[in-house]
Amino acid sequence: MSKTENVVLTNMCMVYSGSKILVQDRLDPKWPGITFPGGHIEVGESFVRSTMREVKEETGLDVSDLRLCGMKQFTSEDNTYRYIVFFYKTDRFTGELRSSDEGKVFWIERSELDSYVLADGFDKMLEIFENDELSENYYYFDNDWHCENL
Amino acid sequence: MSKTENVVLTNMCMVYSGSKILVQDRLDPKWPGITFPGGHIEVGESFVRSTMREVKEETGLDVSDLRLCGMKQFTSEDNTYRYIVFFYKTDRFTGELRSSDEGKVFWIERSELDSYVLADGFDKMLEIFENDELSENYYYFDNDWHCENL
Repeated sequence: MSKTENVVLTNMCMVYSGSKILVQDRLDPKWPGITFPGGHIEVGESFVRSTMREVKEETGLDVSDLRLCGMKQFTSEDNTYRYIVFFYKTDRFTGELRSSDEGKVFWIERSELDSYVLADGFDKMLEIFENDELSENYYYFDNDWHCENL
Repeated sequence: MSKTENVVLTNMCMVYSGSKILVQDRLDPKWPGITFPGGHIEVGESFVRSTMREVKEETGLDVSDLRLCGMKQFTSEDNTYRYIVFFYKTDRFTGELRSSDEGKVFWIERSELDSYVLADGFDKMLEIFENDELSENYYYFDNDWHCENL
């Protein structure tokens, strides 16, 4: 197929309940800190189903009624690959909360998020999850990295 | 980067005004018929901006306030590439309507869409544009092609 590019496809999900949000304290030294659960989309997999699978693996919860709320994307400095994260959110879930090897998951008040150590760039991603008028957390390299929310 | 796959990234935009929608009668013999304007996303390009650019090129209109409403995706039968279309919609535009080599663009009543010859699969795509509870028009091959809206 012409016009293909190398892309890493991933997902992330904000599970919320009233004023609370479900966060993950990521252990991965490449991107540690507070974020939402999510992960890699497998070849051929549905984006919605991949998100349900990742939330299940990392939180123990079965989520449904996912709403697409935006994306994060950047192209590597050497133009060899693009990285895309699809953002979903839902307040529909069942099951017992349990953490995984990826990191501890727990509920916090949304209003208290700032008192935690967030993963790098997570604050800009959060704007996309929470502002219906924005749908893209876009990074681009032009001598230095720039970040824009559109 | 590990876990990359070959992906074709494209966009499509529903421009509407009250009960009217802006359609394109595509000339491309590979996928002819009525659809919405859109096209290929360039390497490193913002998804939102790529959509504004394509709408401008194919309709003459400057659009703004794009809202992401879903995606279409499929992985080729031989698993060599994935094809993704990002769906946007807006009723904010300025400029004079003019068609391009891609096909004639014109306003129609949404209610009269069924009287036109639609591009293959466009009816299933439209459900994603119009139903806020759906975000993915997913095709997969399992002996034969299947289509699912999630």
